Amino acid sequence: MDIASILGLVLCGVVFVYGIVSSGGFGALGSFWDLPSVFITFGGALFCVLASYSMQNFLDGIKSFRLVLKRPTIDTPEMIRKIIDLSNIARKEGLLSLEEAATNLEDEFLKKGILLIVDGTDPELVRAIMETELVSVEERHKTKIGFWDALGAMGPAWGMIGTLVGLVIMLENMDDPAAIGPGMATALITTLYGSLLANWVCAPVASKLKENNAEEVMMKEIMIEGLLSIQAGENPRVIEEKLKSFLSPKDRESWNKPEDGGEAVG
Amino acid sequence: MDIASILGLVLCGVVFVYGIVSSGGFGALGSFWDLPSVFITFGGALFCVLASYSMQNFLDGIKSFRLVLKRPTIDTPEMIRKIIDLSNIARKEGLLSLEEAATNLEDEFLKKGILLIVDGTDPELVRAIMETELVSVEERHKTKIGFWDALGAMGPAWGMIGTLVGLVIMLENMDDPAAIGPGMATALITTLYGSLLANWVCAPVASKLKENNAEEVMMKEIMIEGLLSIQAGENPRVIEEKLKSFLSPKDRESWNKPEDGGEAVG
Amino acid sequence: MDIASILGLVLCGVVFVYGIVSSGGFGALGSFWDLPSVFITFGGALFCVLASYSMQNFLDGIKSFRLVLKRPTIDTPEMIRKIIDLSNIARKEGLLSLEEAATNLEDEFLKKGILLIVDGTDPELVRAIMETELVSVEERHKTKIGFWDALGAMGPAWGMIGTLVGLVIMLENMDDPAAIGPGMATALITTLYGSLLANWVCAPVASKLKENNAEEVMMKEIMIEGLLSIQAGENPRVIEEKLKSFLSPKDRESWNKPEDGGEAVG
Amino acid sequence: MDIASILGLVLCGVVFVYGIVSSGGFGALGSFWDLPSVFITFGGALFCVLASYSMQNFLDGIKSFRLVLKRPTIDTPEMIRKIIDLSNIARKEGLLSLEEAATNLEDEFLKKGILLIVDGTDPELVRAIMETELVSVEERHKTKIGFWDALGAMGPAWGMIGTLVGLVIMLENMDDPAAIGPGMATALITTLYGSLLANWVCAPVASKLKENNAEEVMMKEIMIEGLLSIQAGENPRVIEEKLKSFLSPKDRESWNKPEDGGEAVG
Amino acid sequence: MDIASILGLVLCGVVFVYGIVSSGGFGALGSFWDLPSVFITFGGALFCVLASYSMQNFLDGIKSFRLVLKRPTIDTPEMIRKIIDLSNIARKEGLLSLEEAATNLEDEFLKKGILLIVDGTDPELVRAIMETELVSVEERHKTKIGFWDALGAMGPAWGMIGTLVGLVIMLENMDDPAAIGPGMATALITTLYGSLLANWVCAPVASKLKENNAEEVMMKEIMIEGLLSIQAGENPRVIEEKLKSFLSPKDRESWNKPEDGGEAVG
Repeated sequence: MDIASILGLVLCGVVFVYGIVSSGGFGALGSFWDLPSVFITFGGALFCVLASYSMQNFLDGIKSFRLVLKRPTIDTPEMIRKIIDLSNIARKEGLLSLEEAATNLEDEFLKKGILLIVDGTDPELVRAIMETELVSVEERHKTKIGFWDALGAMGPAWGMIGTLVGLVIMLENMDDPAAIGPGMATALITTLYGSLLANWVCAPVASKLKENNAEEVMMKEIMIEGLLSIQAGENPRVIEEKLKSFLSPKDRESWNKPEDGGEAVG
Repeated sequence: MDIASILGLVLCGVVFVYGIVSSGGFGALGSFWDLPSVFITFGGALFCVLASYSMQNFLDGIKSFRLVLKRPTIDTPEMIRKIIDLSNIARKEGLLSLEEAATNLEDEFLKKGILLIVDGTDPELVRAIMETELVSVEERHKTKIGFWDALGAMGPAWGMIGTLVGLVIMLENMDDPAAIGPGMATALITTLYGSLLANWVCAPVASKLKENNAEEVMMKEIMIEGLLSIQAGENPRVIEEKLKSFLSPKDRESWNKPEDGGEAVG
Repeated sequence: MDIASILGLVLCGVVFVYGIVSSGGFGALGSFWDLPSVFITFGGALFCVLASYSMQNFLDGIKSFRLVLKRPTIDTPEMIRKIIDLSNIARKEGLLSLEEAATNLEDEFLKKGILLIVDGTDPELVRAIMETELVSVEERHKTKIGFWDALGAMGPAWGMIGTLVGLVIMLENMDDPAAIGPGMATALITTLYGSLLANWVCAPVASKLKENNAEEVMMKEIMIEGLLSIQAGENPRVIEEKLKSFLSPKDRESWNKPEDGGEAVG
Repeated sequence: MDIASILGLVLCGVVFVYGIVSSGGFGALGSFWDLPSVFITFGGALFCVLASYSMQNFLDGIKSFRLVLKRPTIDTPEMIRKIIDLSNIARKEGLLSLEEAATNLEDEFLKKGILLIVDGTDPELVRAIMETELVSVEERHKTKIGFWDALGAMGPAWGMIGTLVGLVIMLENMDDPAAIGPGMATALITTLYGSLLANWVCAPVASKLKENNAEEVMMKEIMIEGLLSIQAGENPRVIEEKLKSFLSPKDRESWNKPEDGGEAVG
Repeated sequence: MDIASILGLVLCGVVFVYGIVSSGGFGALGSFWDLPSVFITFGGALFCVLASYSMQNFLDGIKSFRLVLKRPTIDTPEMIRKIIDLSNIARKEGLLSLEEAATNLEDEFLKKGILLIVDGTDPELVRAIMETELVSVEERHKTKIGFWDALGAMGPAWGMIGTLVGLVIMLENMDDPAAIGPGMATALITTLYGSLLANWVCAPVASKLKENNAEEVMMKEIMIEGLLSIQAGENPRVIEEKLKSFLSPKDRESWNKPEDGGEAVG
């Protein structure tokens, strides 16, 4: 579970409530709940996004909220070690021996690549298949990110529509001056809802999905690079050198210390 | 018929009307209809877009609204199966036998590609012709998407022009304080109309057309990839492996189950 | 003359005037004319754009307004037929016979290409020269489009500057409450002028020039493709197949019917 | 000296002053000068940009204002003629004879290229060196353009900060209603200053630098193309044909008339 | 320590405080401090960014503020000289002698490249490894720049949320007209805070990090170019000519003067 996202979303709520209570007391909280405003802002935004996508993509978009809460179990150094292990196996026992090793792998993408190699698929074709798959994965991620971007754009738009509706109604009925203040307050609430939808929910979710996508794509690029090197029969040490370039300085430091022996294998 | 788009567009209208009625009662609905505002906002926006395009592209743009309501009958797994069938025919009975098979195909793009292959066209030329056509299709889609983007930008712009006109007239005649409220209300209605045109109609239509375009382009890319593989005489099993990379995980799962026998053909 | 652009520009004016008259009567039209506002908005915007370009590009930009009103006489199917005719001549009577045929051509770009071919210029060089010219043409179009984009951005900016000037003057002299309304009305007029300049004039002109540019570029790409195919001595039927991919479905349909005989030539 | 930029900048000032005087008389000019507003808007914007760059790039950015006022002495047809002359010399007297010709050249970029050719540098390396230099030149231009873009973005931002400061102070002290008008007027002046900084100064300067950059880059591309053709020993007539594609229709017309004899040289 | 950034950030603060004091006296400074506003604006913005990133990237983003204050010790001419020295060593004493020279190098990137060359790594592989590393470095920089861009976007968004909260509370309690002014003043303070966060802090930091990144990337590109030239055994003079194209005119001038002798080495 990714503590950063949950912590961030909760703390945003805390400062928001604190801001209301510190200015207007606990009684003021009630002024910030208005059911018709909820309908017109959240309903309008959500239904507009529904109209923009196929039902399948719309549902996938909503479900992708869960992905924000669980950190993808991506550990680049471990993946690189796994690929180096595989290259050692391939070197010592031949490419065919990889079939057995592949059965233990959890990652479907890596597994598929190894089975293609074991099948004796042409390297060019292996690269083409793996890259098409990578592009398809990215395409699907982008649809989900696009869902949250669209919802984040629709929130303020429908917030403004709600505020205009409230203002028109208030301006048409200006006989009672005492009602002007509360009328405008209600009108502004949809704008507030729209801002909260865009900035409290949609922006963080879209950013998080982008970050996750970037990490997964880099991971898959490492796998493709590694698989093709294994197929080409490259020296495990060279493969290590190649893949280590993907590591951050911090990961690289911890790599060189306890695992230094690994480099002597090739 | 695509339920998502129609449902979305209708529900947006429902929450909008509900928002008005719940704040101002049914009587308030009348305040939101003003014919001069309709003319200046929708007329101004539409005529500006008319001035931006040739008559043909303008009419095509308006007509493209219908495309939003009908879901393109795109079934990627079925198309891949069709291409694998064709590759099996080509393998067993020769490329020329594809001519007969092509007569049963509904998709004009695939048909054209097969006829090019049967004619013995050079593979490079087949790719060039098919890709030029794909680019032309995309270009035409983009013109239609651009129409809705332009209308969506012009809506708020002419809404603001209408509001400025209303404000200037109201400010010039401030002798009767009772008229100020309704005057401003009317002035704001064009801004509201502009927002609705942009967010209720144009944004969903443009998004939907983009989604449809992306799906059609992917479909045509699968066909080009498949056709060139058939022409190159590649093994149907390799072709299947190649094209399956385009499938989503869900489609791929259902692919592997009941149709597993298909893989043993090649 | 392109009816769509003129119609659009005129109808925008009609709905704008109708909007004023229907709200404030014919007398209100006078409130929307204010010479100092004209100077500060249109003058400021225009002079800022003047400062942004060289004198030559500035004058070319203004002149390009005329291009919007005349539809470029581009007829893609006819151009393709012309190229196929040329390829038939080249096939039957040799490349040198094209020199005579070129004298009848109106299009300078196509003519230049044919003369390069007749001169025996290396195909690589023909492509390089034609593409450099295409890029130069596009560059010049983009400068003109950029002029209208810049003017469209400067309009609202100087409109806002004018409004701020008006507001500051009004706020400094608030002794006479009766003058506040008309003062604000005048202040808002520059914002209105800026919006009209951007949305009534600049946006349609820039869009139209973009459309014209896209059509001309596609036309020139068809010519380059055709010329190189003729030089390479390709079969006229293959050339037809290649160039037809550029056609829209509608043009393609009408192509196949009455002119079907043309395909049998090659 | 480029008359367009100076004329534009001055005329913008004229319409601005005319707008003030025509609405509020000469006495109103005084209302538009407020030293604290100058400090917070121009100071804030400038110091923010200072914080965004290294001291060197900041000073180069400010200095680049002068480049707007002097039109680069770029004459494309003359440059093309010079290159054709050089190609004739190289053809008749050999590549080494270019060394002498190079001493008369003013343009450092062309000179460097010729010296590389005379030194017998490999063509690939000549292209690589010249293009790296072109990219470096463009990079430096972009830093300067970025300076003005950043200042143009910071102007309105600090103008709004100044207005917010003024509004907060005015709202805290609302005891004297007569002070509200002038208080708001002063608050708005920073917004006006920010708009003027962005639209009167920064936008034209950034546009102008972009135009100058585009011209210089095209000029240098012509030189690279010409130099490599000379080194390859291409026919001067072919070189002329190649380089003429860069010319505008107007330049090309005047090229073909009086200088027609030049074409007969090759 | 980079004087420009610190000077800029401090001077922005000075003009901001001067603007307040000159309009409202020292007593007005107190009006600009409001703890709940600090929480809702800075807290909301910061926690939203926290929700957008993994904890690691969030902390790295905050820490990257320090990078703005220290100027990267990048001296392009010196680096080029170092590479030319290395090329001279390689020429005279062979590639293996570089191992010793590498031990004195401070730059880890250059060191790694030299060790790869000494190991006899294939040139293609050297380029691939170095470029992957360069891309990874840039990717990490972009994450940090993205952090400040996101914070700069969230600042005004949460400022507006705070203002809306303040307005709603004020409008609900309009019984005491004397409280309206101070109520609105407090409501506006969050908007002011958001603007300051975006324009005083985030924009300069993000710009500065972009500038630093561009310089580091160019430096690393020079190293890659130089290393591959050394490995290819190119003449030190040619290498100098190649790398000098990266220098600015100013650096190039000072290069040619006192160090002219260096050119005679090759």
